[in-house]
This record gives sequence, C-alpha cells and structure tokens, in this order.
Amino acid sequence: MKGRVVSEVSIIPIGTGNTGLSSYIASCLKVLEGIEDLSYRLTPMGTVIEGPLDKLLAAVSEMHEVPFSKGALRVVTYLKIDDRRDKPSTMDSKVESVHKLQPSIEV
Amino acid sequence: MKGRVVSEVSIIPIGTGNTGLSSYIASCLKVLEGIEDLSYRLTPMGTVIEGPLDKLLAAVSEMHEVPFSKGALRVVTYLKIDDRRDKPSTMDSKVESVHKLQPSIEV
Amino acid sequence: MKGRVVSEVSIIPIGTGNTGLSSYIASCLKVLEGIEDLSYRLTPMGTVIEGPLDKLLAAVSEMHEVPFSKGALRVVTYLKIDDRRDKPSTMDSKVESVHKLQPSIEV
Amino acid sequence: MKGRVVSEVSIIPIGTGNTGLSSYIASCLKVLEGIEDLSYRLTPMGTVIEGPLDKLLAAVSEMHEVPFSKGALRVVTYLKIDDRRDKPSTMDSKVESVHKLQPSIEV
Repeated sequence: MKGRVVSEVSIIPIGTGNTGLSSYIASCLKVLEGIEDLSYRLTPMGTVIEGPLDKLLAAVSEMHEVPFSKGALRVVTYLKIDDRRDKPSTMDSKVESVHKLQPSIEV
Repeated sequence: MKGRVVSEVSIIPIGTGNTGLSSYIASCLKVLEGIEDLSYRLTPMGTVIEGPLDKLLAAVSEMHEVPFSKGALRVVTYLKIDDRRDKPSTMDSKVESVHKLQPSIEV
Repeated sequence: MKGRVVSEVSIIPIGTGNTGLSSYIASCLKVLEGIEDLSYRLTPMGTVIEGPLDKLLAAVSEMHEVPFSKGALRVVTYLKIDDRRDKPSTMDSKVESVHKLQPSIEV
Repeated sequence: MKGRVVSEVSIIPIGTGNTGLSSYIASCLKVLEGIEDLSYRLTPMGTVIEGPLDKLLAAVSEMHEVPFSKGALRVVTYLKIDDRRDKPSTMDSKVESVHKLQPSIEV
C-alpha cells in the first residue's frame, strides 16, 4: 500500500562566507507552507516532512533552488526517506511507538 | 572555542525480519539516559544529541552495539555532527533562530 | 548555470530477514542502465550518480520502488546532492581536484 | 564476531567563503595516511574508510578538527558505518558481491 512517507531534508549552501544558515533555512521552509498534502516540522538538525513521495520530491527540488536564488553558488542537499507500506506511519506515530516502550525518553 | 556540538544519530539493524524498529531505538536511547553532559531529543527520523564531541562519540559507539546485543547481525549507523565554534549553538537555539525569522513555521 | 549535479544514493530494505543486500542493489542499478544522461558508479557505501537534477530525482524515485517490487515492506532511501553552479563539476573532476593537491591519496 | 567495519565520512566546512573544498579534504585525508589498520578510498561524494570501529571513530574525530585548524568556524561531519558481524565484509567484497550479480554495472 503506497501511502505517505516520512522524510528528513537538510539543505546547506557552501561558500557563502557566513557560518549562520538560518535565513536560508527559513526561506526553504516557505516552500513547504504553500504545499497541500505535506506536513512538516523543523528540528535542530533538519526538517521532517510527511506526505506522498511524488509531492515530497517536487518540494525538495524546489527547496534546493532557494539558496541559489539567494546568491549561493553551491548547495548540498540531504534527503532521507522512510517509506513503510505494511501499515500507516506518520511523524507522530513513529515517535509515539518508541515513547510507549520507554516513557522516560525525551521527545 | 571548542564547546558543545549538536548532532543526529540514526541506528538501523539490517536483516532482523521485522519492519518495526521501535524496540531497538528504545534500547539505544537507554544508553543516553545514563550519560551526564549529553542532552537528547527523539525526532521522527532520528535522535538529536547535544554535548561535548568526545562524550557524543563514546555514546554513539555504545548505542551502535545495542542492536547486536539484541540479536542483530548487521547494523548501519548514521551520524551527523554540527560543530559551531564562533558562538554557542544548542538544539533549542538552532530552531529558535529560524523560527524568529519566520514565526509561522512549525517546530 | 544549472548543469549536472553529482549525487550519492543508498537504498536499504528493512525487515527482509536477510543481512545481505546485494541482490536489491543490483536490481536498483538496472534502473540506471536504462537512463540516458545519467552516469553512475557503484562504491562500497552507495551509488554515485551524475546528471541533470530532474533526471536524477526521477531515477531515484524509480530505484526506491525496486525493493518493494521484490517483496520488501519498508525501504529507507538516502540521497545526497552536490550541486555546483559556479563551474562544471563531475564525478571525476571532484576526485581529481583533491588528488592533484595530495597525489599520495588512494582513489 | 566484531571485526572491521566499512564506513563513509564527509566533512564540510561552513561559511568559508569558498565554494571549493578540495584543500580541506586533502588535509583531512592526511590524517588517514598515518593510521595503521585503516584502509581508505576517496570517492566523488566522500571517503570510504575500512577498519576497526574504535580506530575509525578516533580518526574521524581527528579529521573533524582539520578544517578548524585551517580557519573554519563551523564544520558539519557526516559518518555512515556499516558493521556486519555474520561474515567478514570489506570495501572490495561489498562492491564485488553486487558486481557478480550484475557484471554490466560500472564500479
């Protein structure tokens, strides 16, 4: 059963001369706000995105262009896709299934 | 200035015959509960860990052994380290610096 | 200048009950053989693919389906894209530029 | 049976003002030349390293410091460890096991 995947994306401009990346990340996230069918959550190390695989790939492709449009000349993008088809899997259910086994962990 | 790094770790047992990984992840996280100086947070796609680099590497090494101790014969571990030395950087400050620029994003 | 990107993809079926992944990888690579405009090279830790970004994403999407078609119920796919637009960059040029600086390194 | 792991490391300095990373990579690789027990191979997207896990982690820790010693103020390091304990696994055997199944693939 092909459904929603849970993924994480991280987009890094190289050679911008600035150690801070927040403004690039904020602009990349604007892309996600406009896309129906995709849920997302910013974490300290990337952005978790949930939705249909084709919509996800189209969004990542668009996000990847954002740093270039802001002047970057090299961009490295990381994408990790977790696609489970034996039962529905969501951002929340993935964390909950671990938390249920060990309630003391921090989420 | 060498300080605390922010990282993400993901540990996957291969060939266990089970699509679910929650019990492995829960056991790996127990390692972190016993280590002073490390903060962590479970996300849908990995575990974010913050602390000194040497303590982090020792913890990841220990976490990597956990699936073997539960019977796995192959383990693939992913580690991403973000180490910023021009100013302090934490799990919370990284997310906040983006959120401040774009308050509508979900964190 | 939008040109060819260099990328690395790694596709892991979860819960197959077999520690070996070679047959899955071999089938995924068959997808690449049929696609013009993409060059690739198998390494010990993944497959390096070079070509236009849109062709790459279409290929990765197709490769990601392969383990499911062979019976897997969960697949984790990693993709790293290195996109440089200030000058052409290829699989070979990336390695050569390092090798030129340090001829003793093994490639 | 705890033996040699196969891994891939990628070390990226952030905010250096230069899109090229070759000089940083070349310096990181010098660390590996001095370490017995570790084999390595530079690929277009990272460096594959083979050896005992503790030696590997010590080397990655040392490599991670190199860009800082060259002036970088932020470094992002990626490490992927593939640890198989049911049978010996090497850089070469991993590629060969796929190549044997599909001799037409490029390695």
